[in-house]
Amino acid sequence: MNIYFACSITGGREFERIYQELIRALLADGHEIPTAHLAESNVVDLEAVVSPREVYERDVIWLRKADAIIAEVSVPSHGVGYEIGFALSVGKPVLCLSLEGRKISKMISGNPHPNLTLKMYKNVEEAIRLARGFLKTVK
Amino acid sequence: MNIYFACSITGGREFERIYQELIRALLADGHEIPTAHLAESNVVDLEAVVSPREVYERDVIWLRKADAIIAEVSVPSHGVGYEIGFALSVGKPVLCLSLEGRKISKMISGNPHPNLTLKMYKNVEEAIRLARGFLKTVK
Repeated sequence: MNIYFACSITGGREFERIYQELIRALLADGHEIPTAHLAESNVVDLEAVVSPREVYERDVIWLRKADAIIAEVSVPSHGVGYEIGFALSVGKPVLCLSLEGRKISKMISGNPHPNLTLKMYKNVEEAIRLARGFLKTVK
Repeated sequence: MNIYFACSITGGREFERIYQELIRALLADGHEIPTAHLAESNVVDLEAVVSPREVYERDVIWLRKADAIIAEVSVPSHGVGYEIGFALSVGKPVLCLSLEGRKISKMISGNPHPNLTLKMYKNVEEAIRLARGFLKTVK
């Protein structure tokens, strides 16, 4: 399955280790994740070689091609919020994963869109289980 | 003019004073801003009396009714990012205002959508001038 993984970049990187473990598990399951490099510690350097416009256009192409979107939403991010709104507007299934106890925007927690699922996790193992469970529901 | 003002709530409130001064100036100009209370210091208490679902549905109705969206994007926020994506998907003009020197998501800074304008300001007086200039361009 082709998965668009969305995580905070300019918003803050305190959950980087969780992004990395989640992506590693999903790649090991055989999924394709074109955004896998966004979990790397040197993501800001990696993304600095392309213009903001190129990043935007590349990401929108990847969103349109994806079978599903998995967004880690523990750290506030305009980009991830935008991608969730965009993905729903083009009919993609979206899973939002958040560490328990983090504050969640009501535009996510109160959003009744049938393609949007929000799940809270206690640790990265649970986040991986929730992601796998979600992907089984994607047609 | 009916303006949807978007700002960080759960993402962080360090720019609250700027939200308040900007809204005060636009209200004094005679605009309607249904989200004006989001700039108040007690916004979390104000919003606690309604469910996340009610907040979401109220905000989407306000977005659809708005002539223009003004989003303060200095503080990362899933909700504001979502609202920008949603507003563009339903054809609304959007102005993003950021304090100079803040990191901006490339989903905003690299976004070529003709209805999206990003402007940087040095102080709240400049933010107000930029908002007024943008509103003059809205038909």
